[in-house]
Amino acid sequence: MASLRGMQQPELSKKLFKIIKSENHAIGAYESASRERLSIASQLSDWGEATGDDSVSDISDKLGVLLSEIGEQEDVFAQNLEDYRSVLKQIRNTESSVQPSRDHKAKISDEIAKLKYKEPQSTKIVQLEQELVRAEAQNLVAEAQMSESIVITMVADSHLQTRQKLKEAYDLHFAATIERAEKQIMLARHGRRLLNLLDDSPVVPGDTRPAFEHSAQARLVLNDAEEDLREWAPNLEPITSSATEMGSNLMPHQAGAAATSDTGEALTLTTEGSNVGAPETFGQRDISGSSTTAQAEPNQTYQS
Amino acid sequence: MASLRGMQQPELSKKLFKIIKSENHAIGAYESASRERLSIASQLSDWGEATGDDSVSDISDKLGVLLSEIGEQEDVFAQNLEDYRSVLKQIRNTESSVQPSRDHKAKISDEIAKLKYKEPQSTKIVQLEQELVRAEAQNLVAEAQMSESIVITMVADSHLQTRQKLKEAYDLHFAATIERAEKQIMLARHGRRLLNLLDDSPVVPGDTRPAFEHSAQARLVLNDAEEDLREWAPNLEPITSSATEMGSNLMPHQAGAAATSDTGEALTLTTEGSNVGAPETFGQRDISGSSTTAQAEPNQTYQS
Repeated sequence: MASLRGMQQPELSKKLFKIIKSENHAIGAYESASRERLSIASQLSDWGEATGDDSVSDISDKLGVLLSEIGEQEDVFAQNLEDYRSVLKQIRNTESSVQPSRDHKAKISDEIAKLKYKEPQSTKIVQLEQELVRAEAQNLVAEAQMSESIVITMVADSHLQTRQKLKEAYDLHFAATIERAEKQIMLARHGRRLLNLLDDSPVVPGDTRPAFEHSAQARLVLNDAEEDLREWAPNLEPITSSATEMGSNLMPHQAGAAATSDTGEALTLTTEGSNVGAPETFGQRDISGSSTTAQAEPNQTYQS
Repeated sequence: MASLRGMQQPELSKKLFKIIKSENHAIGAYESASRERLSIASQLSDWGEATGDDSVSDISDKLGVLLSEIGEQEDVFAQNLEDYRSVLKQIRNTESSVQPSRDHKAKISDEIAKLKYKEPQSTKIVQLEQELVRAEAQNLVAEAQMSESIVITMVADSHLQTRQKLKEAYDLHFAATIERAEKQIMLARHGRRLLNLLDDSPVVPGDTRPAFEHSAQARLVLNDAEEDLREWAPNLEPITSSATEMGSNLMPHQAGAAATSDTGEALTLTTEGSNVGAPETFGQRDISGSSTTAQAEPNQTYQS
């Protein structure tokens, strides 16, 4: 048994190690897409100016603004995925850090069992049994340390932290996916409004094309886009978590039931991750995150 | 004048050439993100199985299905961006292919003007004037060839095709952005439903955690996601185009007004690009596109 477990667990943390590495590549791909998108946006504006067509010049410049904002959202997405990735790392650390003490404990138990069978009178048995008590205490401390808020009484449930962290990780992941998507939809729809301001009807030979008349309307589209981004707030089905809901006696209030916090210390994980870069001003990006932090929805919470 | 134009135009097609190249890198980044996402999805499922926790195993397997579908959408997005990119290439080809004949025409005009000033009696002037007539005819053919549907009478308006193609390109681009976003939002919201099926409440010491009871509900979430994807159809503000709306006399019906097609040959550009991969079946991806092609919205059309 001991050796089987020893084989299985490092295998497990190796699996998660690989996921964390792949996720790093995925994040890198989004960062690269963001950089290209920003570069294309400014190139498009330059190109439009060089065409010598005032309408194309104005529209392409404003398209560039929207496209670079779409590109910024790819980068915000990448940064939010980093938050998710760091929660995966916590699971991996749990899996790998506690394992040595688990292995040690199992190895001693194994030796005791063997000795009791081969040399039942051996004085070494008492010695090993004392060592086992120490190893168990050591393991208990290790399990408690790695799980921070999970108290020692809970160690019996070794899957608890994995479940909690898995929910936390993919809460962040899906929230980031939804944030990018919702913001990019707003921007793309405003982009389509811009396109419709560009007249591409043929001019009757002999007539000249009228000058671009929609400059003010095009500016309005950008203002609308800016306002939409500023007013965006996450609207998500809350992920409930009751893993760390403990009474002062270190026992859960109601095992098995979703927690309703009475501590008042609601930690808004979802909105915390999602608000990076949320308040945007075109050309003058505010990364303080202060304005939308206030919009954090109170029901998307992890109780702490 | 001739030399200035000659300087300016190749510069212009060089700008677009660079945009097309950058866009290729951006598309590559999305393809790479898609590959990583698919790989992570199957790794997550493997990891969940290895934890030995039935609930984690079931949920992570189904999360993997949704995550791989989110990854597929990155690839659909990349393929749709290829369509947009090929329209940019058409603009670039226009800019670069017609330029030599424009330059040639301008050069002859220039020579004639110089000769008329320096040697007004030169017999070479007549010769050059005949050459100019040939150059103008050649240029007319080149401009008509590159613009396919744009008839010779329209050549005077050299910005027409650029405007039309710019609208067509970013119609595709924004439609692709919206398609990816809408589908990923649906998938991510179903993912959040899955997370809430995973019980992470602590077990009272001495009790054992009950077996995973939500397998059927989790399966239902996947079915819902599949159905949502199947029923997805683009819902976009149409981009109007009247560039190629011609009567049989090769003259536009109504210059300057948005076209209403009377040819019945509506070419649904937006939905054509957007339907790549739209009909999905988990695990058995139907790439024929037949089911949603029928849902193409009749008002998102370029008149041909």
